Amino acid sequence: MSTCAWPARRPTAPPRPRRPDPGVTRRLALVPGEPAGVGPELCVRLAQDARDHDLVAFADPATLEAAADLLGLPLRLSHDGAPARAPATLAVHAVPQARTTRFGEPDPANAPAVVQALTAAADACLRGDCHGLVTGPTHKATINAAGIPYVGTTELLAAHAGCEVVMMLATVGAEDADARELRVALATTHLPLRAVADAVTGAGLETVLRTVDASLRSRFGIVRPRIAVLGLNPHAGEDGHLGREEIEVIAPALRRLREEGLLLEGPLPADTAFLPHRLARCDAVLAMYHDQGLPVLKFAGFERAVNITLGLPYPRVAVDHGTALDLAGRGVADVSSLRAAHRLCARLAGAARG
Amino acid sequence: MSTCAWPARRPTAPPRPRRPDPGVTRRLALVPGEPAGVGPELCVRLAQDARDHDLVAFADPATLEAAADLLGLPLRLSHDGAPARAPATLAVHAVPQARTTRFGEPDPANAPAVVQALTAAADACLRGDCHGLVTGPTHKATINAAGIPYVGTTELLAAHAGCEVVMMLATVGAEDADARELRVALATTHLPLRAVADAVTGAGLETVLRTVDASLRSRFGIVRPRIAVLGLNPHAGEDGHLGREEIEVIAPALRRLREEGLLLEGPLPADTAFLPHRLARCDAVLAMYHDQGLPVLKFAGFERAVNITLGLPYPRVAVDHGTALDLAGRGVADVSSLRAAHRLCARLAGAARG
Repeated sequence: MSTCAWPARRPTAPPRPRRPDPGVTRRLALVPGEPAGVGPELCVRLAQDARDHDLVAFADPATLEAAADLLGLPLRLSHDGAPARAPATLAVHAVPQARTTRFGEPDPANAPAVVQALTAAADACLRGDCHGLVTGPTHKATINAAGIPYVGTTELLAAHAGCEVVMMLATVGAEDADARELRVALATTHLPLRAVADAVTGAGLETVLRTVDASLRSRFGIVRPRIAVLGLNPHAGEDGHLGREEIEVIAPALRRLREEGLLLEGPLPADTAFLPHRLARCDAVLAMYHDQGLPVLKFAGFERAVNITLGLPYPRVAVDHGTALDLAGRGVADVSSLRAAHRLCARLAGAARG
Repeated sequence: MSTCAWPARRPTAPPRPRRPDPGVTRRLALVPGEPAGVGPELCVRLAQDARDHDLVAFADPATLEAAADLLGLPLRLSHDGAPARAPATLAVHAVPQARTTRFGEPDPANAPAVVQALTAAADACLRGDCHGLVTGPTHKATINAAGIPYVGTTELLAAHAGCEVVMMLATVGAEDADARELRVALATTHLPLRAVADAVTGAGLETVLRTVDASLRSRFGIVRPRIAVLGLNPHAGEDGHLGREEIEVIAPALRRLREEGLLLEGPLPADTAFLPHRLARCDAVLAMYHDQGLPVLKFAGFERAVNITLGLPYPRVAVDHGTALDLAGRGVADVSSLRAAHRLCARLAGAARG
């Protein structure tokens, strides 16, 4: 077991968000995602909350109104760019769909509108018209069925901005609560397991860790972020007996990054890295692959879990669930993850309350 | 996401242990493991508890007495085979060490005694003189330094009994508590990550799942065990987009086993398989590899976590921590895991109280 790379204990208070510039109106873009899924109704639910920043939906207004009708909730859409901060209001940037939404039945004819909503919202963020992006779930198979190459929204936004990004999942504490956030970034994401070992490279780890470090500083306001880096193999390779990637790839990359000033612990055995006293010593965990890091994060707080894209010029936070087509339009979908995504994005955009 | 393979909800009450035969004395073997580690003092602490079955330590009596002296705890060792159920008593099967124990300083000269203690305890279980085996932590490097080939105690016991075994980790609820146990069995154990995909075979999965199923029935008293089987790849391969082992290896094995009557769910995406409402539907989870299943189990309850060997002719439960050489002899080591291992082993041996 590696020992801690830093002697001092981290402060127990959670990091404070950056203060918004007084007088500057903050505006967040909100994209419901697949119109036939639960995204639109979750956006309608979210819009019921009061807030101290604008929320602009990039969507077909008719879909949002249909979702509000089904739920029996009030919704006032503002089309003229006027601020929409009051409860039950949303500013809307209209992205018309080809066909009327039938909840629960995704239609590839509407897939271009889904992608256009995402890129229009991303453009607004890149121009500075919006200060952060909150996204609902998309339905990859439906977008692909429309003949549009699409791997995921994270990849789409990365390509659109011309950035290398890192996927980080987090559990977001309740509003005004000091509950610690568990943050797990991934060195590799959606790869077959047998491709993982070769995909973990020294150069790749350096890029990922620099991005995570920079994002924890600039977005999360953590002055000296501490990152716990997992090994690739069980027991972090057990001194080479269970794999040599820790010795040959991971540890050398960490050494180079420590020389740049990054505070890194590891490579650590994954099975004990998430014990509470260890998590208390770090601001984020870097897992080498998907199923090494995400089961424990979702176990720790699925309904509070969100998906953050690090490395974009703007903060982007997504829900951590799918389109739940079987629930769509029934008013029973849980808004917790979207609410957590919105709350965190507002904080990262410097628009947090209080 | 696969749907549940069984319609009925499992009963909410935890499985009841098998009743001991009235009048039959149950006896558990206890092996401290590495004498220079925390094992001996944890055994002394465990011996302080009252119990309704014998506890026989296979160890050098001088080491146990030295640990008791260091901790300032009473300890009466019975060498004559008399039952030892009272607090602060242990029956002892003496396995002399070559050298006096120096806590914190493992000595390869004592490694043969460590292995002899394990095999003597295993023999007692195989003969039926003992009805279960509880083991503390060993120190692999020290045993190997003595020139003894040794991978781990699980492997040693399996070879000694001539059995194929399965490693299952579990969190054990507090005594008399109805807290659910989380149980995670492993299809592969201590392999480099890059070797995992090829090590997961249909025949291997069938053997492992039959062993898990049979053990849940015979040892845990669960009449119709339900096992949630994880996929190998992220999102359980996402219909082949992220790997084909689910389609080509895992699902066919599960189909064959379902025809034999096993109740199996899966292959499931690992990241959502541990959500509470999913765990409530199964009696154990089968993870495909070490770091897919164990981080969440240890996060869920490290101090209550134990390591169970399934497939032996007797129940064997081990602590889920190492020798903690830096803590040995200081009286500060946490006895929770050994106590949990002992409690569970007593239950599995049919010697539970109440």
